[in-house]
Amino acid sequence: MKLSKSFFHCYPVHKSDSDYFSTDSGAPDLKEVEKLLGYEFKDKALLEKAFTHASVADVAAGGCESYERLEYVGDAVLNMLLARALYLWYPDLSPGWLTQLRAANVDTEKLARVAVKHRLYTYLRHHRGGKIDDQIEEFRKEMEKHPLHSMGLIKPPKVLADIVESLIGAISMDCEFRLKKLWPIVKMLLEPIISPETMKLRPKAELQELCQKKRWKMRYHGGLEDGEINVFVEDHLVGKASYSRSMKKEVAINHAAKDALMHLKTTTFVSSETYSSDIGRELV
Amino acid sequence: MKLSKSFFHCYPVHKSDSDYFSTDSGAPDLKEVEKLLGYEFKDKALLEKAFTHASVADVAAGGCESYERLEYVGDAVLNMLLARALYLWYPDLSPGWLTQLRAANVDTEKLARVAVKHRLYTYLRHHRGGKIDDQIEEFRKEMEKHPLHSMGLIKPPKVLADIVESLIGAISMDCEFRLKKLWPIVKMLLEPIISPETMKLRPKAELQELCQKKRWKMRYHGGLEDGEINVFVEDHLVGKASYSRSMKKEVAINHAAKDALMHLKTTTFVSSETYSSDIGRELV
Repeated sequence: MKLSKSFFHCYPVHKSDSDYFSTDSGAPDLKEVEKLLGYEFKDKALLEKAFTHASVADVAAGGCESYERLEYVGDAVLNMLLARALYLWYPDLSPGWLTQLRAANVDTEKLARVAVKHRLYTYLRHHRGGKIDDQIEEFRKEMEKHPLHSMGLIKPPKVLADIVESLIGAISMDCEFRLKKLWPIVKMLLEPIISPETMKLRPKAELQELCQKKRWKMRYHGGLEDGEINVFVEDHLVGKASYSRSMKKEVAINHAAKDALMHLKTTTFVSSETYSSDIGRELV
Repeated sequence: MKLSKSFFHCYPVHKSDSDYFSTDSGAPDLKEVEKLLGYEFKDKALLEKAFTHASVADVAAGGCESYERLEYVGDAVLNMLLARALYLWYPDLSPGWLTQLRAANVDTEKLARVAVKHRLYTYLRHHRGGKIDDQIEEFRKEMEKHPLHSMGLIKPPKVLADIVESLIGAISMDCEFRLKKLWPIVKMLLEPIISPETMKLRPKAELQELCQKKRWKMRYHGGLEDGEINVFVEDHLVGKASYSRSMKKEVAINHAAKDALMHLKTTTFVSSETYSSDIGRELV
């Protein structure tokens, strides 16, 4: 297949190649994406749209729409495909577990990993300069510390997950939602798919479960002003994590919970520091 | 098509016909559902499962699984089908609006209306006595006051939405997710589909929008202990609604917001009652 020049008709004129990700010629070669997917688009504009960030989309000037509407479609398709697959693969799994397992396979971190693994971000057309590049580089380093999924310990750049969803949205529209076309592509992109065996609970959920089982009272305290989150179990300080404006509160809580779990599992759970009610505000 | 006796093999022995909804023969005739859908199931057990409440499901005793896993599949399929349809029908609608419009078409109230309109609840097999019947009867009366959608003013019984989702899950599994089979059935069930023209904002959202536009400060106060929710705009009491344990807080808030909107639209916004900070607790 040969892509005609008109395929790239809505690529905006840009100041320098550095506006794009790892592009030598100015316009990334979307034929490579088709090769990766093993799928040839009937409507090339859909593929192009999937990689068009709102910062370069300019419909009024005759340009291309951004990926946001396709992302909305792709998100729904992903959820449906995973719901189906997990339903069939795990006939004894409860709806609650099916929902958790699906979430782990389609959440922002998982999809951001897909974008990094297949270098999909290199096709993203955006005008937001180096900021996105820096975020992706930081995420890539953090990712290496957690081979499968950090389960809430790192904060991925949303744009990476967005383009995976928009790409799946574009394929869905192009192949008219045919399961036989869609599922092998999505499965390939998501590999390794997290299973009940490889899935771990988020530290926050694991700690909650442990405390419920042992009938321990558990509380989180602290906030941005304190610069940290503390975890108290039976009024003993058992875990802490730093918390700053650059972090999501949920990420800080998961770090604190992980610290607490490590403490609770490796000691006989005797802490010298006891809870004093004026330490901080209750979080959860 | 003739349904064999084995189709009903897992109907549990029950004490009386009143355990079921409007059944004269003890077992509801699921052929009627196939007729309504214009779809004949290859795997009749799927259709049966779609109407099996957890209270009668007894897998251990060789009985049928409950509808919960199919409900999980159906929910995802519904979201995908609506995402696709709204994307195609409204090419200029933003992702934010597409999401709101989809929500209005697949939320608990909308699906509960589908179950009532097509009398799908009459096929539900459950062992929860008259409680479900009473809830459905109450919802049916409330429904009549709001022809299309109450937008948050009534609380529908979740079980009604559940069986619509489980039925869609069952059709999806049976027809192998073929869009051409699925979409006409789902579209028929959901008619009238709420459009951008017929969609109304929930009163809470409408009030928030109005106050943002006018740059008015707005607050909700009150709670279960007060028995009511009050709305203050620019420190004037402009709306109220009763709030009791039998209501969802969100429903009470929407009623209070609706009262406030009526007040703000019909008067020149002068209230004799002014806000006193000891009236109640802040809600939102």
